Order: sequence, then structure tokens, then C-alpha cells
Amino acid sequence: MAVRSIYVGLDVGGTTMKAAAVDDEGAPLSAPVVMDTRPERGQEAGLETMCETIRRAVAAAGLGPADVTAIGVATPGLMDIKAGLILDPPNLKPWKNVPVRDHIRQAFGKPTVFQNDANAAAYGEFWVGSGQDANSMVLFTLGTGVGGGIILGDVIAEGQHSHGGELGHLRIDMPDRGRLCGCGARGCLEAYASATQVVKRAREDMAAWRGSSKLRAFYTANDDEFTAKHVFDLAAAGDELALKVVDDTAYYLALGACAVVATVDPEMIVFGGGMVAAGEWFRAKIDGYVRRYGLPFPTKTVKVTFAMLGSDAGFIGAAGCARLAVRGTA
Amino acid sequence: MAVRSIYVGLDVGGTTMKAAAVDDEGAPLSAPVVMDTRPERGQEAGLETMCETIRRAVAAAGLGPADVTAIGVATPGLMDIKAGLILDPPNLKPWKNVPVRDHIRQAFGKPTVFQNDANAAAYGEFWVGSGQDANSMVLFTLGTGVGGGIILGDVIAEGQHSHGGELGHLRIDMPDRGRLCGCGARGCLEAYASATQVVKRAREDMAAWRGSSKLRAFYTANDDEFTAKHVFDLAAAGDELALKVVDDTAYYLALGACAVVATVDPEMIVFGGGMVAAGEWFRAKIDGYVRRYGLPFPTKTVKVTFAMLGSDAGFIGAAGCARLAVRGTA
Repeated sequence: MAVRSIYVGLDVGGTTMKAAAVDDEGAPLSAPVVMDTRPERGQEAGLETMCETIRRAVAAAGLGPADVTAIGVATPGLMDIKAGLILDPPNLKPWKNVPVRDHIRQAFGKPTVFQNDANAAAYGEFWVGSGQDANSMVLFTLGTGVGGGIILGDVIAEGQHSHGGELGHLRIDMPDRGRLCGCGARGCLEAYASATQVVKRAREDMAAWRGSSKLRAFYTANDDEFTAKHVFDLAAAGDELALKVVDDTAYYLALGACAVVATVDPEMIVFGGGMVAAGEWFRAKIDGYVRRYGLPFPTKTVKVTFAMLGSDAGFIGAAGCARLAVRGTA
Repeated sequence: MAVRSIYVGLDVGGTTMKAAAVDDEGAPLSAPVVMDTRPERGQEAGLETMCETIRRAVAAAGLGPADVTAIGVATPGLMDIKAGLILDPPNLKPWKNVPVRDHIRQAFGKPTVFQNDANAAAYGEFWVGSGQDANSMVLFTLGTGVGGGIILGDVIAEGQHSHGGELGHLRIDMPDRGRLCGCGARGCLEAYASATQVVKRAREDMAAWRGSSKLRAFYTANDDEFTAKHVFDLAAAGDELALKVVDDTAYYLALGACAVVATVDPEMIVFGGGMVAAGEWFRAKIDGYVRRYGLPFPTKTVKVTFAMLGSDAGFIGAAGCARLAVRGTA
């Protein structure tokens, strides 16, 4: 009987961590196992939770640890990818200098790779998601922030300082007048196009809007529960003010995409995260601005799509990174 | 006797083409052979001139065609790198769809690779120039335009549409208010920081300048012969207006560098071309703006340097690309 290759992917977030065993074609062998991260309990407890999540994922697939070919772990930054270290990410406080890769490798005695979570998600989409037929792909992840990952064939552009694909901090306006970003700089894409900023811009636009708008009525009634989803829903229903906010969002995202075209010129640009639930009309808006403002030759044919794997991209991609490291090629 | 590996690099420009045989350590075995390109004579004549330049380069090294391991040819875009084709570059008119790689390969019966000229120059600097100790490097070439190349280890980021590293078209200001670029778009780095635009900005700044300036006196006396070099020379001599123009140039270039940090996060960013003759004070200005406006973690340690190989980077890099293709790794 031929030996199957089994890769376990673990995606560690600030709130939960998620793992599953994945086969050689990128199919999860069970629903993902989810455990609370609870970083406040400290990094020793965190490492043990990672091991336990992996053990449960292996068991959920009906396998034993000996069946595992390799393990991939993805975490948010700051990190040192080459060293396999979590440094001090803001959403994993108070963890500091956590030797994730070596700990997991020793615990399971299996080849283990470590990767940034957005890079892993990008690799997941590249391996078995939207980018599965592409030679190269860039992912923008849209959430409370904007993240990203760049995949060029078998190369994950992780960067010399583990900051490759920090696409939320691509500057789309000059630093003396751009919107203020959480990173302290001005003009970063994240300061325009994250879900948080969509809400913020909606509030600003509301103040200046002369016509009637359901957005204003909705906001006045719902106040704190107002989210980017409400803006997108009202835009889909034809509200003009909401449409303006969404249209601006598409424009800003396209400017980020244009910068990616001028640097790495990928075959495909993929957007993932909550906002892509808006669907094709939003994709078409981004696409239109990319063709309008991007370099003519590559933007004639670059593909602009939405992600397919949802929140599974992280653990599938982490497993894919393990497979890539073991095989040397996709 | 061990067989030496010999690579011939050919760098084709709109005015001249340049070739030399290069050894396995990147050292040219003779001064480069230079011939006129004369694109107006047509592409058949152009291909023959390429072959003749290569033949003369081999002879200049005291070798015969049989001694050559592989050949690298670099040309300006538009091109299809994977297909080995020149498409229709503006400075090689009226050439169209020229099968450079296959023609040279058949003429010499040697493995032949084809590359964009700025990518080749970047690879030259990475192999044996400023980036020789770096794991990854990005080159900005500053001339009448702004070009670039991105090298990530053994990968030249040539792009899906042969437009990787088109760094002159990174946008540093928004398309509704940025400076107009030769490509028709607004806000491209090239519209701010090319040698041509340094002169143009100097003229604009002159019109608004209230104080005295040698730049104005010089310009009035010399008119059409006014170049970026004059601006830099006067800045070096302490002229305040010239210093402002140079300082702005450094700022704009740094914004381009920051975009490169946020996308591929290289170990080193190298600037090449005429302006780097200005020397360390200009480098230090760019460097300062990169630290100020770049992502804090990677820009703490990213190296900002000037190129070393001058106009030899193209043919040395083309030879290096041939070597990379034959060996599979640097």
C-alpha cells in the first residue's frame, strides 16, 4: 500500500487557534479543531495549546501522530520566520520570543515549518483556492486591518525581516496628507480600506452628505453596532451614500493592487475577508479601477478575484507550506 | 584541466549594445565590446548585430564560441520574457515580435536566456555588485526614466506579464492629483524622480523661489544644457534652491523604497544611474526618509546603498542570468 502524505496545518489567532490534517491534494480530513488561544495565560500554556490542537486534529482525522508527514504553523506578526520565532505580536500579548517551530518539531518529531498567517492564507488560496491555476498570486486580506501575502511560484515572498506582503502598509497617499494609520504613519492602504475604516469613512461621508440616505437613518438608530457589512448591504440595496463609501473602498483597494502590479506583476490578485461577501458587484468595481489606474500591459490580463477558502485558508495554507518545504515544490 | 564556465552577457539598448564574456565569479574577461544598435535598420539587422557583438566579445576574451557555456541577452521592454521575445519597445522602433532568445540560441548552439535589461542590471548588482552579500535586493535605476528589478534569492521577480519591477510606475501620489507621467497616468514615481523630472521640478521650483539662487543664474545662462547633474552639483555647493530640489528627489525615491519594503521586504535597496554620482550625502538623504516613512521593523535594518557596477551591470547581469539558468542557483 502506498504511504499517504498527511500535513497538519495550525493557524494561531489572538482569540482562537484552528487546525486540521490535510491530504496531499489540500483536502482537510476533518472539520477543523478549534481551541481558545487565551494568550494571557502565557506562552508556555500557549505552546501546549498548540500541541493539543494539533493532537486533536490528527485524532479527528482518524490518524495517529506517526501518520503525519510534516506540520505547518501560522501565526500573526511580529515574528522571525526564518528562526521560527514569534517575537511580540500585539494580539498575542504578553508572548515574547516564543520558539514555536522548534517546540512543535520536538514535541512531534516531525518536520515543522513556521509562517506568517497572511502568507499562509495566501499560500492556501494559491495551492487549492482561487489561485490554484495561477503561476503567481497576491492576496489582500480585508478585516479589522488589511494584510497580505505574495506567492511567486514556489516562493513565498516572506521578506528579509518577515515583513513581505505587508500590503496594508502600502502607501496610497502621501505621508503629509494621507489618512492616519494605526501604525502611526499616514497614507497606508489600511487607513482607507479595512473594515474599521469603511465604517469610519461612512461616518465622515455622512456628515458631509446633503441628500437623504438610509445609511444615516440606520446609523442613528443602531449607533455602536454599525459595521462595514451594513454599509455594503445598504449599497447593494441602492443607497447612494453607501454606494459612494463602497466605491471609494474599491478605488483604494485598486490602488493597492496597482502597486502590487508594478512591483511583482502577479498573474492573479485575490481579495479575501469579510467584505468579499458583498459579491461580484464589489469585485467588478475593484477590477474596473485596477484596469483604469494600473500599468496598461499587465492590467490588460491580470485576474482580480475573491478568495474561496474563507477562514480555512490559514490552516490549509499552513499545511501547504509544510508540504512545500518537504517536497521543495508545489 | 578543469573546464572553465564562461558566460556571455549582451545588453541591448536603443543606441548601443554592449557585450563581454564573464567568468564564473562575474569578472569580465575583457573590456565590453560596444556596437551601434541602429534599430531603424530593422530587426533582422538588429539580430545580426547582436550575434556579431557576442562573437566579438568572445574573441576579445581570447576564446572561441565552443568555450562558451551559456549566453544571456537583456533588452528593454515591452517584451515576453518567458517566450524570449521583444514585443514593441518604444526605443527599439520599428522592431516587433523579435524572437531574440531562439535566434541567438540557434546561431551559437548554446543555452540562451532572455531578460529585461533592468532585471538583468539588478541581478548583476546582486551577483557581484552592491548586493553580493545580500539574500534579496531591489534595484531602482535612475535615468531619463525610473526602472527597477527585484531579486529574491535565486528568483528574479520578472512577473507574469514581464512587468515585475516596473518601479518607476509605483504610484507615490493619488491618480487625481499626482504629477503626470509619460505613461499617461498620474502619480508615478518616474514623474517625480527621473533625471528629466528633476530638471522639470527645478524649473518649477525656480519660478516660486523668492531668495537668490545660483541655480536660477545658471539656468538663465545655460538654458537648454541644464541637466540633473547641474542641480546636484549646485546642491553639493550649498545652493538652497538646488538643495530643496535634491531633498524632494530623495523623499520621492524613499516613498518608492517604502512601497518595496511593504511588498517584498528586501534585505537591500540599491539605487543606480547617473544621479548616484552625487555620492554619500544624497544616499544619506534617501536613507533618512526611508527610516522616517517606512514600516518601522524592516526599515530599522534594511540597507540603502548605491550601485557599484555602473553601466556594466546590464551585461554582467545578463551573463549572471545565463549562469543562474544553467546552474539553477547562484
